Amino acid sequence: MTYLLLEQLNMIQALPDAQRFMGHAKRTKPAEDPSLTHTQADSPMGEAMRLHWQPVCMSSQLNDLPLPVRILSEDLVAFRDKTGLVGLLHKHCSHRGASLEFGRITDKGIRCCYHGWHYAHDGRLLDAPAEPANSPLLQQVKQGAYPVIEFKGLVFAYMGPPAQMPPFPHYDSMHLPDVELVPYAISHDCNWLQVHENLMDPLHAVFLHSRMGEIQLTEAWGEMPAVEWFEKGDRVCYLTSRQIGAHVWVRFNEVAFPNFGQVAGFWEDGLTAKFFERVGASRWTVPIDNTHCWIFGWRHFSPSLEAKGMGNASQVGLNQLDIYGQTGERVYEEMQRNTGDWEAEVSQGPIAIHASENKGSSDRGVVMLRRHLAQGINSTHLPAGSIDGQTPTWTCNVVLHRPSPMASDVEMKLSVPELLSIGRSVKTVILAADCLSPPLRQAEIMAQLQALSKPYE
Amino acid sequence: MTYLLLEQLNMIQALPDAQRFMGHAKRTKPAEDPSLTHTQADSPMGEAMRLHWQPVCMSSQLNDLPLPVRILSEDLVAFRDKTGLVGLLHKHCSHRGASLEFGRITDKGIRCCYHGWHYAHDGRLLDAPAEPANSPLLQQVKQGAYPVIEFKGLVFAYMGPPAQMPPFPHYDSMHLPDVELVPYAISHDCNWLQVHENLMDPLHAVFLHSRMGEIQLTEAWGEMPAVEWFEKGDRVCYLTSRQIGAHVWVRFNEVAFPNFGQVAGFWEDGLTAKFFERVGASRWTVPIDNTHCWIFGWRHFSPSLEAKGMGNASQVGLNQLDIYGQTGERVYEEMQRNTGDWEAEVSQGPIAIHASENKGSSDRGVVMLRRHLAQGINSTHLPAGSIDGQTPTWTCNVVLHRPSPMASDVEMKLSVPELLSIGRSVKTVILAADCLSPPLRQAEIMAQLQALSKPYE
Amino acid sequence: MTYLLLEQLNMIQALPDAQRFMGHAKRTKPAEDPSLTHTQADSPMGEAMRLHWQPVCMSSQLNDLPLPVRILSEDLVAFRDKTGLVGLLHKHCSHRGASLEFGRITDKGIRCCYHGWHYAHDGRLLDAPAEPANSPLLQQVKQGAYPVIEFKGLVFAYMGPPAQMPPFPHYDSMHLPDVELVPYAISHDCNWLQVHENLMDPLHAVFLHSRMGEIQLTEAWGEMPAVEWFEKGDRVCYLTSRQIGAHVWVRFNEVAFPNFGQVAGFWEDGLTAKFFERVGASRWTVPIDNTHCWIFGWRHFSPSLEAKGMGNASQVGLNQLDIYGQTGERVYEEMQRNTGDWEAEVSQGPIAIHASENKGSSDRGVVMLRRHLAQGINSTHLPAGSIDGQTPTWTCNVVLHRPSPMASDVEMKLSVPELLSIGRSVKTVILAADCLSPPLRQAEIMAQLQALSKPYE
Repeated sequence: MTYLLLEQLNMIQALPDAQRFMGHAKRTKPAEDPSLTHTQADSPMGEAMRLHWQPVCMSSQLNDLPLPVRILSEDLVAFRDKTGLVGLLHKHCSHRGASLEFGRITDKGIRCCYHGWHYAHDGRLLDAPAEPANSPLLQQVKQGAYPVIEFKGLVFAYMGPPAQMPPFPHYDSMHLPDVELVPYAISHDCNWLQVHENLMDPLHAVFLHSRMGEIQLTEAWGEMPAVEWFEKGDRVCYLTSRQIGAHVWVRFNEVAFPNFGQVAGFWEDGLTAKFFERVGASRWTVPIDNTHCWIFGWRHFSPSLEAKGMGNASQVGLNQLDIYGQTGERVYEEMQRNTGDWEAEVSQGPIAIHASENKGSSDRGVVMLRRHLAQGINSTHLPAGSIDGQTPTWTCNVVLHRPSPMASDVEMKLSVPELLSIGRSVKTVILAADCLSPPLRQAEIMAQLQALSKPYE
Repeated sequence: MTYLLLEQLNMIQALPDAQRFMGHAKRTKPAEDPSLTHTQADSPMGEAMRLHWQPVCMSSQLNDLPLPVRILSEDLVAFRDKTGLVGLLHKHCSHRGASLEFGRITDKGIRCCYHGWHYAHDGRLLDAPAEPANSPLLQQVKQGAYPVIEFKGLVFAYMGPPAQMPPFPHYDSMHLPDVELVPYAISHDCNWLQVHENLMDPLHAVFLHSRMGEIQLTEAWGEMPAVEWFEKGDRVCYLTSRQIGAHVWVRFNEVAFPNFGQVAGFWEDGLTAKFFERVGASRWTVPIDNTHCWIFGWRHFSPSLEAKGMGNASQVGLNQLDIYGQTGERVYEEMQRNTGDWEAEVSQGPIAIHASENKGSSDRGVVMLRRHLAQGINSTHLPAGSIDGQTPTWTCNVVLHRPSPMASDVEMKLSVPELLSIGRSVKTVILAADCLSPPLRQAEIMAQLQALSKPYE
Repeated sequence: MTYLLLEQLNMIQALPDAQRFMGHAKRTKPAEDPSLTHTQADSPMGEAMRLHWQPVCMSSQLNDLPLPVRILSEDLVAFRDKTGLVGLLHKHCSHRGASLEFGRITDKGIRCCYHGWHYAHDGRLLDAPAEPANSPLLQQVKQGAYPVIEFKGLVFAYMGPPAQMPPFPHYDSMHLPDVELVPYAISHDCNWLQVHENLMDPLHAVFLHSRMGEIQLTEAWGEMPAVEWFEKGDRVCYLTSRQIGAHVWVRFNEVAFPNFGQVAGFWEDGLTAKFFERVGASRWTVPIDNTHCWIFGWRHFSPSLEAKGMGNASQVGLNQLDIYGQTGERVYEEMQRNTGDWEAEVSQGPIAIHASENKGSSDRGVVMLRRHLAQGINSTHLPAGSIDGQTPTWTCNVVLHRPSPMASDVEMKLSVPELLSIGRSVKTVILAADCLSPPLRQAEIMAQLQALSKPYE
């Protein structure tokens, strides 16, 4: 009874029943879990991330000027020299510490503004023009630098111990025919993990993206799915299965240790059959420091993925994406009225407090992911093998005709076990094809799924 | 001799006499007094404040969107559901920590944006729609919440242990006939105490509001008063007595433990007799955290209080008041040229350093207030009793004809003891009427004061 | 091999040779050297600075309002009272701590806004108007204050122990005939030392100001000089000698313990003979706190110094100077494209990390300066003696005809030893004249240098 006009009660206002209110009992907040959330040098999660290639900027950010970047709490400067080589150097010049963001890009490196020390993209000191030509500094000094690979508009660096540098991970989804990868980068004012684990949380899509307000994707997302989560090797995955009228839409998403993830195409409506349509976005959640992070990734565009014309490659780039609610650049009132992933993730605080959570069965993916990360820190998950230089990934949308003994049952709702069973059949088909070379695999999976789709015809 | 043109002295510039300057000797600053200034959970003063109802926002701030508020270093979200009930919940959802400031207000509570968890105004979990209907979470989870009472446009919360929740304090001044209470809220970038103790410091009005520059209220405030401070129960009070020509203006102000205060009408000029004219503003100084606070309160408007037309209810609200110098929203140069309470208080620093002060006889109220607060922390001051559901308060302006054996003495200045004696007579009349019911009390006090006003007629 | 189009390599992208990259090995950063960089009260360097007169603001900043200043991590308020006396007081009023930046300037001091306490420029409490006339506070209270001398548009304070106050340092360069001293003040967002030591680093001018991009001064600065650094008493100095065609330009700069420095005229082109042309700027690098500082100083203007019309006294003042790149008020892209001293200094970080540097022979001045500072902290360097009330300084530009046995050798480049020898001859002439009174000295040095300039005629 908290809202009474005093006048109505002759000046005796009823007090609330205080015993019901738990604010005082629950006011003390536990601390964050540093083992998964902290990523500076020498932190367990930070060292695990450093053993993998990490995006650090977009190619389009490298013009004729150096770019200061902060990654994993390290201050760095990226640049492309005039031969096209990309360098990623420690920010402060080894000479007297001026920032190389004010350096001059040269034919084969960068010169510090202050005294002209000239570094190659790999940190070699090529020239220290105020020193004698025989200065021992030229042999002794190396600017801190990290190996870089540039791929499809993203610049990746390896920041771990040199002896442990892994191959660059060529996921099959980076090489699909007819797919254009459009790079993007979105900054978040919070810890990396609360952004990343959203990928293994399919239920939020039902609410945040659908039922809570405006339809942010398609109506089908608002249908409650049956979900199966599973771990396999370096992956954590889920399949959601939703009945959409006479069809069942199975969505298969995955993350790979430590911070890569893929989601299937965004605009699925589940209304027509579809067999192994692939990825909508591939992305890495990269810590800037412990309370800020980037999503670096690619939006995938193809005629099939964009058949409905809902995507827009021209809106994909630095702090912009053609999916609603992914950036922090809207006004506060709009964030309140039509909340997106960005607010749901960032508003958990600078570092989300796991010990304050109350997780249910719908959070199984988040629980599984955190455990998978913890295990990965202590004993690296083996990365999956590759075929023809590509590592198979599973992310896809599949839409099957619903199984039914008779067409007249088409209005009957499938049960959760029936939906889960369909999802598992899809999973079985897809995983079984890992050993095939890419074009064979695509054809084989599509054929098998098409077969699954026709039991009642 | 610090300002000499060298040329005038043939290049021998006299040095200052360094021994006179105490900057070096006094450069080390002591620390603040945490016992009175710190108010986070488990701090002595913070726990004392939590045993009392505290305003947390204005009713007008609660529209169709949730309102994030920070009170006593706790992050909260206030909202009014569609039935009109006001809730005050911990900011972070008990599920996975998304901020409820991005929740959707419902018919009977608020739903978290992320997975739709639905909380009643008292923190009960009504629904967790991604969980099974029989999920134990529905019984186990309670969102941190505090009991709320809404009154006259302010929302009050009780943030202490439930078993110790006191009645809502119905001061008589909240129920005066013909008085409109207009709510306001003003943020201050400093600790709460340096804002609150200004209320027991009547001398600053002579200087800050009058003699230092522009007349911010009326000329009468610039007259040096005789002051009596006293403690009684949960109150610290003062009476200032000023001779204004043929009249004596007695002003009676009070604060109540821990952070409530009232000041009498603002526009008094002392030129005409007045008997027990009441309050100009009632207010609470509420910590946001240890270095920020709100004043929440009501400006009182009545035909009598505003007879001069100097107040303006349309200028009273969020970070605005119809009294000069009460907000931080003026430009710096205006703050320097015509300084108000806001600057005098905030410029003492994030937390004023008591150990650096040099207090004199004019600071007796501040000293008394701090001692009263320290005593209140250790053994709660008993709140005053109530009559007909109202607790009597004393704040008022009284203007009496000056006592004089002969009309010809009217030009003679009253001495400080004479002024103090008049103040004490007023105090005696007013305090003696505490036991009367509100309408009787008003009539009795006015009659007694009117009698005091006529000794020489 | 970091920039390969995958397509060109049939999807097998070559990995960089990780062993060459030292980023991981060098990622841990040591701490700053607090003994030279920290300057708060009781720090070794801070106490050394407090034993010297320090500029704290410009005269032009003192108008009819008080000026808050922060110097050596102390919060202060400067003001000029109505008789012209300048006061420098602790910011917080000794009464109850309100900031004196909101005080009222009076005929002979300043009154606190809050209760009108009235302080003289030396901190004496002249009046506490809310207290009785016989209050012991009037004798007991002194506002923290520092002795001040105002000179040529700068306000200097002595913030050390009164018994050790030194004379004001009248350098000869403050009293040169026909020279106008135009005061300026430039704030820097970094520690003082990385700003100050730039003065003993003549090589940066070759790169930062010349070869790295636009010519910021004259082309002659881009010629690599032969440099000699030396210490003498409280000074660290250098002479740079550059052959400019048929002339040799010798530039003589100096710093004096702890934070004073002078640089010779800026616009020298070395094309015509010049004998002992003096100072371009005299300046002190004054800590605001450990991560911010001011340069306070004078630009020197004279018909001779400004013969080329490149300077502009109207661009000299608060955060502006008529030399490119000295302030932080340009846009970031311009800072990147045409980098100035401000960025080179500030971008070293809040406090430059000496232990991360790799210093070479060109950094000898910086090494010498830091050692000189460390020695000065432990045993004060004796200041140089004065003649006729002036302390001789050496800063100057000298341009001599190059020595040559035959005119036909004029195209031959002088060797570094030859250039050093010429520099030393100039140094010998200038230092030998220290004992002469100012006008005699100027004439004597010019005559001697003129003699040096004619060996091959």
